[in-house]
Amino acid sequence: MIINWKPNRDSDKSLYDQIYNYIINQISNGDWYIDSRLPSERKLAEAMEVNRSTISNVLDELKSEGVLISRGSKGTFVANNTWSILASTSQPNWKKYLDQGIHKPNQTTIQMINKYEFEDGMIRLGTGEISTDLFPTEYVNEIMSNITLNSLNYEEPLGYKPLREAICKYLSKFDIELKPEQVLIVSGSLQALSLISIGLLQPGSTVFVEKPSYLKSLHIFQSAGMKLKEILMDEDGIDLNDLRKKLNKSGTNMLYTIPTFHNPTGIVMNESKRKQLMEIIKEFQLPVIEDDAYADLWFSKAPPKPLKSMDDSGSVLYTGTLSKSFSPGLRIGWIAGSESVIERLGDIKMQTDYGSSSISQLIAFEWFDKGYHERYQIGLKSSLKSKCKLVLELLSTHFSDIAKWQKPNGGFYIWVTLKKDINMFKLFEDALKSKLLINPGYIYDFNENNSIRLSIAYATGSELEYGIRKLSEIIRKYY
Amino acid sequence: MIINWKPNRDSDKSLYDQIYNYIINQISNGDWYIDSRLPSERKLAEAMEVNRSTISNVLDELKSEGVLISRGSKGTFVANNTWSILASTSQPNWKKYLDQGIHKPNQTTIQMINKYEFEDGMIRLGTGEISTDLFPTEYVNEIMSNITLNSLNYEEPLGYKPLREAICKYLSKFDIELKPEQVLIVSGSLQALSLISIGLLQPGSTVFVEKPSYLKSLHIFQSAGMKLKEILMDEDGIDLNDLRKKLNKSGTNMLYTIPTFHNPTGIVMNESKRKQLMEIIKEFQLPVIEDDAYADLWFSKAPPKPLKSMDDSGSVLYTGTLSKSFSPGLRIGWIAGSESVIERLGDIKMQTDYGSSSISQLIAFEWFDKGYHERYQIGLKSSLKSKCKLVLELLSTHFSDIAKWQKPNGGFYIWVTLKKDINMFKLFEDALKSKLLINPGYIYDFNENNSIRLSIAYATGSELEYGIRKLSEIIRKYY
Ligand SMILES: Cc1ncc(COP(=O)(O)O)c(C=O)c1O
Ligand SMILES: Cc1ncc(COP(=O)(O)O)c(C=O)c1O
Repeated sequence: MIINWKPNRDSDKSLYDQIYNYIINQISNGDWYIDSRLPSERKLAEAMEVNRSTISNVLDELKSEGVLISRGSKGTFVANNTWSILASTSQPNWKKYLDQGIHKPNQTTIQMINKYEFEDGMIRLGTGEISTDLFPTEYVNEIMSNITLNSLNYEEPLGYKPLREAICKYLSKFDIELKPEQVLIVSGSLQALSLISIGLLQPGSTVFVEKPSYLKSLHIFQSAGMKLKEILMDEDGIDLNDLRKKLNKSGTNMLYTIPTFHNPTGIVMNESKRKQLMEIIKEFQLPVIEDDAYADLWFSKAPPKPLKSMDDSGSVLYTGTLSKSFSPGLRIGWIAGSESVIERLGDIKMQTDYGSSSISQLIAFEWFDKGYHERYQIGLKSSLKSKCKLVLELLSTHFSDIAKWQKPNGGFYIWVTLKKDINMFKLFEDALKSKLLINPGYIYDFNENNSIRLSIAYATGSELEYGIRKLSEIIRKYY
Repeated sequence: MIINWKPNRDSDKSLYDQIYNYIINQISNGDWYIDSRLPSERKLAEAMEVNRSTISNVLDELKSEGVLISRGSKGTFVANNTWSILASTSQPNWKKYLDQGIHKPNQTTIQMINKYEFEDGMIRLGTGEISTDLFPTEYVNEIMSNITLNSLNYEEPLGYKPLREAICKYLSKFDIELKPEQVLIVSGSLQALSLISIGLLQPGSTVFVEKPSYLKSLHIFQSAGMKLKEILMDEDGIDLNDLRKKLNKSGTNMLYTIPTFHNPTGIVMNESKRKQLMEIIKEFQLPVIEDDAYADLWFSKAPPKPLKSMDDSGSVLYTGTLSKSFSPGLRIGWIAGSESVIERLGDIKMQTDYGSSSISQLIAFEWFDKGYHERYQIGLKSSLKSKCKLVLELLSTHFSDIAKWQKPNGGFYIWVTLKKDINMFKLFEDALKSKLLINPGYIYDFNENNSIRLSIAYATGSELEYGIRKLSEIIRKYY
């Protein structure tokens, strides 16, 4: 159990209330499991920098509410995380409604990141977006001035057909052959995951994820009542032995994987592993979500073909997006799979938001159809490649004695693991004070870890130079 | 229990399978409740136009599966609608996953409407969209050519701030005074409803809706496990006595209302009723969703101010959209309420789709900021007014002996109620054969009803002339 948090002494809420809410939150958002043991009162007090008596009082209250349970000398445990118990702490009006919703709030750190990203002067060392100066302004303005809009009505359930056709054509480059009926346009691939979580899985299902995984940072599967189970990774991606072992034991389940330029580690699954994984998938009739957000972004050599290209049993739901290779603000992604599954997901999308922005879909169509996508990737990849080189240089200057990392061959991320354990939430906060926004590794992992996800994509060269040097200085203070 | 359906004899699925699936669907999507009684085998056979023995066989199978239960001479009842029972009918692979998702499929008729809308040559008499020839092509192209895009990244959790400010300014016209922190940009107001259903309510909660209501057509609340309870309406909107009576009996609940140009009836709640409703809301501390999609679209006299303008207890969540007054394809709507609620909904939106299309948000901002919205409403309202006049004339020519309706003062809809009971699903199908797409009243109501929602907005004048005449001819064949 990680305590990457402490109360804010400038808040008008009491320390007691803040700690109470923090614990309720950790339990309800699934970060603290039923039956997991809390650190000792002394350790909690230390981590949160408060008196032990304050901790005592909060824990007593939570025990009396049945949220925590004391098992004598074994310690204090999480008793229950059902919303009913949480909701039973009598609340006025909306507060009650807030507490009882099915969807759980995002982790504190993620909420903080979402907000600080929009604060002036922040150096964003972890942001998974292309920097503004790489934006294809000219191309987009060309597209915009060539579109004549005569109407903008609701689209077909699966999305604008010419765009679906263009995506089929684009995917055939990856040896993925599809009909437009097998493609659903979504508002970013995050929405694809959200639709799958509510449309195909039932509460209690298990979703296997790589450890660490982008999915851990999302909470949508946990909110929908699914359990995430972590599968170990080595430097070629998911550990197949570990997967096989855990598969044998489980009921209904699904695998979520990012085989290419994995978020957050940057790892690429090699070809022979992909083949072996496909065999396991067939053997266990295991449904798989293959998230291929970074497919286009290789530096020198194209990665192996996607799992979907080898999928002759219809086991793979394949998601892609324009967010990483063009623009996240467009909110255009896609999900491809067998027709019946796509039809159902499309039906749910209609119920959820009546389809994605027509204007975004039109722009995306032009983007593919007029060849902008291909042309833009050339320049984008070479910029990313040279920024990656810069970051690697900066890392070896400032981090080689205190951390290790793997050199990426594409995508956005370098996963920097510190050699010594430090309080990562405190580091996150200290970095904020110096106007550095970092993505600490615990967002992507259920366990403590000492990693930081650096992104080569967002910050400018000089921001990276300043930021990485500064970050190393801050970290050294902990040593 | 309404049987607005019959098997398709041209399908390659057997009649047995089609009927089996239909019943499973009705139960699982909540249209047939637990403990509700099925019509007799004879009546089912008649309605579906099949042999009684086919019905017998299907019912026997469903009884043996525990989905239906026979209570001797009392008849056959729905035993259980839990997904577990449905999922237990052993299915291969994805089929199983499709059956077990939390989200339920849309009603058959709605799915059919969503599809037939994109079929060439259809005359769409019920579509709630502005017709293409009223689209503000010039304004939009002006906006498009004036926007210079330098970047398109993810937006702040609540959406593009200048747009939120513009919406605050726009809403002050309705005496609604808000800060930008109280407004969340959503991808259409349907998404607002979806976020509320998963963010603020827990399974088993009750949502009161007008009878009939747009919400009935949506399924998002039912999918999230909420019960919809209907409140009667009279010609000034919701029946307050009925509401009061039902409120006394219930636990956690919420009210969904469309006080202005109600979908599907076109009704406007008058001012004194709004005031009385606000008192009930205060008395019962009842959270309310006020859906004000048609606020701008009055023909001669502005409707009374929204409930939100009288809300001093923060009980009202107010939703609006550009879909009806500008363009549904933009997918821009908003939800306004107290800060903590909006913050939570924004957090869930981030988890669901990372925000709405930035380009749509930019266009919407320009649309408000440069005064296009106000200018466009003038022409739009006068066009709608004259189309409404035309439709009323056509109705009195072709329908006055067989139906009744109320003259609307704004919005899109005329609710035409036939004087005689007919099989509405059959009418829907017969109309389709003549290339007329209608929205039958049962989409909006849990009970049988003989109404049709006509829309003045979508079809052109000549389509309306042909379509309404033709529809009356088709209906007369049933007499
Ligand atoms: C692996 C992966 N999938 C999906 C996404 C979400 O992208 P989108 O903007 O398409 O929702 C991201 C963004 O960080 C990602 O890293
Ligand atoms: C009352 C009402 N609310 C909301 C909507 C949905 O509109 P949007 O396109 O904003 O999701 C509609 C559309 O038919 C409507 O009639």
